[in-house]
Amino acid sequence: MATDPLFERLALIGVGLIGSSIARLAQSEGLVREIVVCARSEQTRAKALELGLAGRAEAEPGTAVEGADLVILCAPVGANAALAEAMAPHLAPGAIVSDVGSVKAAVIRDVAPHLPENVHFVPGHPVAGTENSGPEAGFAELFEERWCILTPPEGTDPAAVERVAEFWRRAGSKVEIMDAAHHDVVLAITSHLPHLIAYNIVDTVADLEATTKAEVFKYAAGGFRDFTRIAASDPVMWRDIFVNNREAVLEMLGRFSEDLTALQRAIRRGDAELLEEVFTRTRAIRKGVVDAGQA
Amino acid sequence: MATDPLFERLALIGVGLIGSSIARLAQSEGLVREIVVCARSEQTRAKALELGLAGRAEAEPGTAVEGADLVILCAPVGANAALAEAMAPHLAPGAIVSDVGSVKAAVIRDVAPHLPENVHFVPGHPVAGTENSGPEAGFAELFEERWCILTPPEGTDPAAVERVAEFWRRAGSKVEIMDAAHHDVVLAITSHLPHLIAYNIVDTVADLEATTKAEVFKYAAGGFRDFTRIAASDPVMWRDIFVNNREAVLEMLGRFSEDLTALQRAIRRGDAELLEEVFTRTRAIRKGVVDAGQA
Repeated sequence: MATDPLFERLALIGVGLIGSSIARLAQSEGLVREIVVCARSEQTRAKALELGLAGRAEAEPGTAVEGADLVILCAPVGANAALAEAMAPHLAPGAIVSDVGSVKAAVIRDVAPHLPENVHFVPGHPVAGTENSGPEAGFAELFEERWCILTPPEGTDPAAVERVAEFWRRAGSKVEIMDAAHHDVVLAITSHLPHLIAYNIVDTVADLEATTKAEVFKYAAGGFRDFTRIAASDPVMWRDIFVNNREAVLEMLGRFSEDLTALQRAIRRGDAELLEEVFTRTRAIRKGVVDAGQA
Repeated sequence: MATDPLFERLALIGVGLIGSSIARLAQSEGLVREIVVCARSEQTRAKALELGLAGRAEAEPGTAVEGADLVILCAPVGANAALAEAMAPHLAPGAIVSDVGSVKAAVIRDVAPHLPENVHFVPGHPVAGTENSGPEAGFAELFEERWCILTPPEGTDPAAVERVAEFWRRAGSKVEIMDAAHHDVVLAITSHLPHLIAYNIVDTVADLEATTKAEVFKYAAGGFRDFTRIAASDPVMWRDIFVNNREAVLEMLGRFSEDLTALQRAIRRGDAELLEEVFTRTRAIRKGVVDAGQA
């Protein structure tokens, strides 16, 4: 890209799948002049430098954000409050702070109170990922053609929002602005509940006796395999998502359980008609997803 | 292939995804000299001939199986009893009858009583499929590197079992012999429960208000999308599977629901430790599937 960088110095707090993908694309698309990454473990910092993800790798969030005009929190959402508190005194005036968390109301609750007045907070959620984690797992194309949802609190400077939006557009993403609470409800059903269900069915298998389990692995192609891929996602990241989007997830889980009880009853009673009716309805939903260009 | 055909005349009763895939591979691998298909609807028969799947297309199972040395039932399993009854008087002495159903004890219960003494019954289940259905959806490579499980009742002629096994090996499949009841338990967890769960979560979305539903389609990439693909599978085929594998499915569903209640409780209580423990355990299961060469 021959265009000018959007930011001078990007600080990435956390350099796993998402953080390292941002570092890669920020470099390949020339979105920033320099990158500083922050990671707690020395091993991760060494790996990040070895992979060429940043010019500098810091252990302390405060040191990492000094002089940065864009800071993106890329750690599991449960770490945000402590990170925001640690970095707040070191933020440059006018800096933009953003994040990539899969829940947004909790991020605003945890981060906003720590930030100084002269800093802009533009929470974001790139709806993209794989079941892999760590700095080696990232790639620059991860966000291409994917949605990035921004949930700026009321009163956020529109110019700051636009700069973050432009960053994601140049990452290849489609940007959408949304209310944080609404984001959390929509993602509870599109992402959080599917992950919970996948984790759960895979854990049900973990409880089976050893010989049956070996056969489950062998014949996994019948449907179970797709669930194991989802259920291999990062445990700490997902732990934090469920703890921090409790209400919306429990609401959707309640609906799911009611529906499942109805299906269970239909199977017990041999109610073929009801089963066919439900399975026909779900086919139409697939069509909705395909028509929305998401299949 | 320069080898001789394994059978003279193959009769396929039903010509959807599986039946039409068998027709294609039987031709491309030279497994049979001629193929007759049987379909209730005139439209399907015309389509099968137009696609070149068979030399002849019949409406009546009895007419279709006349002179065939291999008959494969490829209809939804709920249709098997009536099909077996209709074709039984027309079966050639020494013919082998097989099937492709995803449940096996019910198939033996429904088919075996109708078959004459001088016919061999070798039930089979190629563990392969896609979410598409109909004669156009099939392809010759569908069974390559996939398992085909045969569940011959006690006393079945080993030579007949071997001929069916060879048919599937030449289709590219790995063949396994198993007890029918055991097959139904293993498939209940690897395939039937995952499909039920996918159908259910997609149906939960079907119940949401229209505006939320539109957003679910839009952001489906977060996990929900994978479920919609599974839940787009043939409704009649799956209706019949659940009705005919009731006990094993209800048993696995009971375990699944217990586990889900425990996760729900952990989320409600904010028990981060338990959530992380479960999500870490499921990662190891994924490794089991990958190590089994099924990922």
